[in-house]
Amino acid sequence: MDLNFVSDKRHYCADDFIGMDQRFRTQLINSMPGIKSVNLVGTKSEDGFENLAIFNSVFHVGANPPFFGMVIRPDSVDRHTWNNIQKTGCYSLNQVSTNYASAAHQTSARYSKEQSEFAEAGFTVEYQEGFFAPFVGESIVSIGLKYEEHYRVKANNTLVVIGKIEHLLVQEGLISEDGFVNLAQGNVLSCIGLDAYCTTALINRFAYAKPDLPPREI
Amino acid sequence: MDLNFVSDKRHYCADDFIGMDQRFRTQLINSMPGIKSVNLVGTKSEDGFENLAIFNSVFHVGANPPFFGMVIRPDSVDRHTWNNIQKTGCYSLNQVSTNYASAAHQTSARYSKEQSEFAEAGFTVEYQEGFFAPFVGESIVSIGLKYEEHYRVKANNTLVVIGKIEHLLVQEGLISEDGFVNLAQGNVLSCIGLDAYCTTALINRFAYAKPDLPPREI
Repeated sequence: MDLNFVSDKRHYCADDFIGMDQRFRTQLINSMPGIKSVNLVGTKSEDGFENLAIFNSVFHVGANPPFFGMVIRPDSVDRHTWNNIQKTGCYSLNQVSTNYASAAHQTSARYSKEQSEFAEAGFTVEYQEGFFAPFVGESIVSIGLKYEEHYRVKANNTLVVIGKIEHLLVQEGLISEDGFVNLAQGNVLSCIGLDAYCTTALINRFAYAKPDLPPREI
Repeated sequence: MDLNFVSDKRHYCADDFIGMDQRFRTQLINSMPGIKSVNLVGTKSEDGFENLAIFNSVFHVGANPPFFGMVIRPDSVDRHTWNNIQKTGCYSLNQVSTNYASAAHQTSARYSKEQSEFAEAGFTVEYQEGFFAPFVGESIVSIGLKYEEHYRVKANNTLVVIGKIEHLLVQEGLISEDGFVNLAQGNVLSCIGLDAYCTTALINRFAYAKPDLPPREI
């Protein structure tokens, strides 16, 4: 059997996952999607308790109108986040710089409903007029979303939540003339897996790709 | 009105998006989820045409059993990818190093079904025994998935596709003893928005966060 695969790759099959040490499997699988964004999700309960929780599965769903999705694990500390979104219909996404790596990670601790992760991790609460969910004052980018719909993955009960962008706050100086936002210049925090945090540098941008043209930097 | 917001942030409201220049809005909104992974999705049609397309919305759905999700835009070049997944039930995700930034971007061009983006962008086709979809030989990480289920976002018809991991190939030397994979050490490619590519460096890892303990590096 000559599968011609580069010999320096480790190969796991479906059967290997079954007998695998649970912690090893969790780290391994969580590392596999690639470099992930770090979004701090701000919500508030109907009775006024502010909540902030770290998420790394926020994704683009559409630009017009602007929709974002995110994944909420059924067994995670995010239950406050999901409860608040269900009751109040809104939430914020906040991206911070690498200076806040440890503070961002600390929001993943299982605080009680009455404890605010804003205060515990040292972030400033800020509000936009007419929007119920709190924002992170120290953010590079903050996004205020209204709940739109959700889907429960049949395979494992995980939630995919879709929201519509109502507010967008972006650090001045990062927005290019064509609308591109240079998050790397803002030193935005990213991550790998469950607990590893990264800094990012821009290599370059490429023009819209066409079949009959070689890649062209812009 | 004193909203106490940092004055150097630009604020867009829902109404601002409506009248916005379309290209500006597309760049702006696509930049907003944060740093994104770059996954090259390998598929093959029933009649044997190989396809490779760049995606930046792959996300973790579960580790046991291991499920990943990805977003397929209804109006994108990804129609070959989705057609092939529907017909054959499998696909691969492949992450490459920053050396392949321009080649990865080139796979977004609208090639015909008969043209292979592997050949056009200069990637090596490789196969795993018993798995129909092709892999990228130059990858740092390759993942073979079986289609599990999909969801169509009501708001804008976008597809969320869930797959179960059948094969995992990871460059040796990047896998830590605890299962963590240091993709930054492998110089894995990441991106911002539609056309900007990034390199990443690890800052550090943190221990499991607890409410009564300060953040601790590991």
